[in-house]
Amino acid sequence: MSLLIVGTMAFDALETPFGKVDRIIGGSATYAAWSASNFTKNIRQVSIVGGDFPQEEMDALSARGVNLDGVEVIKDGKSFFWSGRYHLDMNTRDSLITDLNVLAQFDPTLPESYRDSQFVMLGNLAPAVQIKVLNQMTHKPKFVVMDTMNFWMSVALDQLKEAIGMVDMLLVNDSEARELTGEYSLVKAAKKIQAMGPKYLIIKKGEHGALLFHGDKIFSAPALPLEDVFDPTGAGDTFAGGFIGYLAYTGDTCFDNMKAAVIVGSALASFCVEKFGPERMKEITVADIDKRIDQFVELINFDIKKQP
Amino acid sequence: MSLLIVGTMAFDALETPFGKVDRIIGGSATYAAWSASNFTKNIRQVSIVGGDFPQEEMDALSARGVNLDGVEVIKDGKSFFWSGRYHLDMNTRDSLITDLNVLAQFDPTLPESYRDSQFVMLGNLAPAVQIKVLNQMTHKPKFVVMDTMNFWMSVALDQLKEAIGMVDMLLVNDSEARELTGEYSLVKAAKKIQAMGPKYLIIKKGEHGALLFHGDKIFSAPALPLEDVFDPTGAGDTFAGGFIGYLAYTGDTCFDNMKAAVIVGSALASFCVEKFGPERMKEITVADIDKRIDQFVELINFDIKKQP
Repeated sequence: MSLLIVGTMAFDALETPFGKVDRIIGGSATYAAWSASNFTKNIRQVSIVGGDFPQEEMDALSARGVNLDGVEVIKDGKSFFWSGRYHLDMNTRDSLITDLNVLAQFDPTLPESYRDSQFVMLGNLAPAVQIKVLNQMTHKPKFVVMDTMNFWMSVALDQLKEAIGMVDMLLVNDSEARELTGEYSLVKAAKKIQAMGPKYLIIKKGEHGALLFHGDKIFSAPALPLEDVFDPTGAGDTFAGGFIGYLAYTGDTCFDNMKAAVIVGSALASFCVEKFGPERMKEITVADIDKRIDQFVELINFDIKKQP
Repeated sequence: MSLLIVGTMAFDALETPFGKVDRIIGGSATYAAWSASNFTKNIRQVSIVGGDFPQEEMDALSARGVNLDGVEVIKDGKSFFWSGRYHLDMNTRDSLITDLNVLAQFDPTLPESYRDSQFVMLGNLAPAVQIKVLNQMTHKPKFVVMDTMNFWMSVALDQLKEAIGMVDMLLVNDSEARELTGEYSLVKAAKKIQAMGPKYLIIKKGEHGALLFHGDKIFSAPALPLEDVFDPTGAGDTFAGGFIGYLAYTGDTCFDNMKAAVIVGSALASFCVEKFGPERMKEITVADIDKRIDQFVELINFDIKKQP
């Protein structure tokens, strides 16, 4: 089924305990599209880039089946640039530079052909932009997932809450869930977020995996324990892309299928962190993904002998 | 099968965000015995208490099938006392008071009838005491699990390493695994610990669950997401007791059964934190445990539709 992805396409400079890169391809929509395109070839990308964004990166995404009609190119502008340094635990990082560049003027008008998309992934962006995208849909999507970050809680809380109220699922990390609700317990935080509108919630916990909430149901997915997390940049967006890509592939939004989609997203994210940037995402095959999913089955499968 | 439990029986004073208690029953062997006795009635307890330790607590354990011949009572001495305050995240705490009292003279001589125990749980104690217990076994146990804490890494590292080299499984939390090995990655830490002797390792991660390692195999168990963790005291010992109690019940130490035992331990620990001290452990039934285990199945069960 068709999948609309809205987010950034950008350059990143990164420092991790394993090394440093000065200017590599990044952005939430880049990672999400690479990830989701393992499952569906009907992807509609919405983003904005400057004239500096490499044509070969666009071509590589096109070749994956990603439609780029919705990617605005500002020829004399510069692409969004983010620079960050990771701490040893790889779950926390400092932003060093955030140059919005063309992202400051991102005011997307969806191509007509995008407006009936059945699945929608709203990457982390100003809530006003997320709302504007949803208001342009001519057909109610089957399922809308929205990512965000704590920055918008500080500067645009009302709009953020409005956006949250319009989507089927919110996707945040544990500290964002706590900040948004004022609840330390993630179970309590999940209840409060569901009361804001979304019937589904995923709380990402980095190396500790992810929790999926729906009403009183909870699903817990582990992260694959890795010897080295080389670069966590994009892991959350890769998770999101794998999650919604699998939903779009199966066309099934029941809770049981959503559990499977969380595992698929976790498997994709476990590849992403193995190399800097989206490099690893460009190499992997369906066979690699299937093998990784089998590792998740091994990782959590058990059989109890109950007492008679 | 027979299970030897060695550890403290003590008094605790606790402060959590939910309240405060001045003097309640605690100790690693207390929690482990309550937990394990849900699965096996052939438990041999080794500990030391003062004349202040309530007879009714002893009687309650006896009634569960716990043999107390190995519990030394120093009539004119005082039982070990620990006082602590938990932080909001409930994964970290400050020790306020540690009065060893009779524990300072703990030098256990195992009753003859204990020396053929098939399963052994060495609670967190001075490594010299743990070694001494193992040296008194006349029959090589089928499986020995050892708990410890970072304190012994600072004051008795050589003896600690000697003890670790004598057991089948080490049970530590994530920060202890990192401190013991100097590795941040838990996968790397697990390899280093296995190289010290134990073929099996469990790393406890509090609210994030636990990891079981054996060679290249890894099993990841979640913790049950709870609205409130009322009091985490004893959760690790309850986990250990449930784990080894299930092994002793099934008599099976293959890796697959050990995965099940980790889930059983996690289920027991999820009860422990619902009330102060071991109170909740005294209430639960086999039916409660089975129901809780079913919740774990729901929590982690999934089924993926792979691409054709």
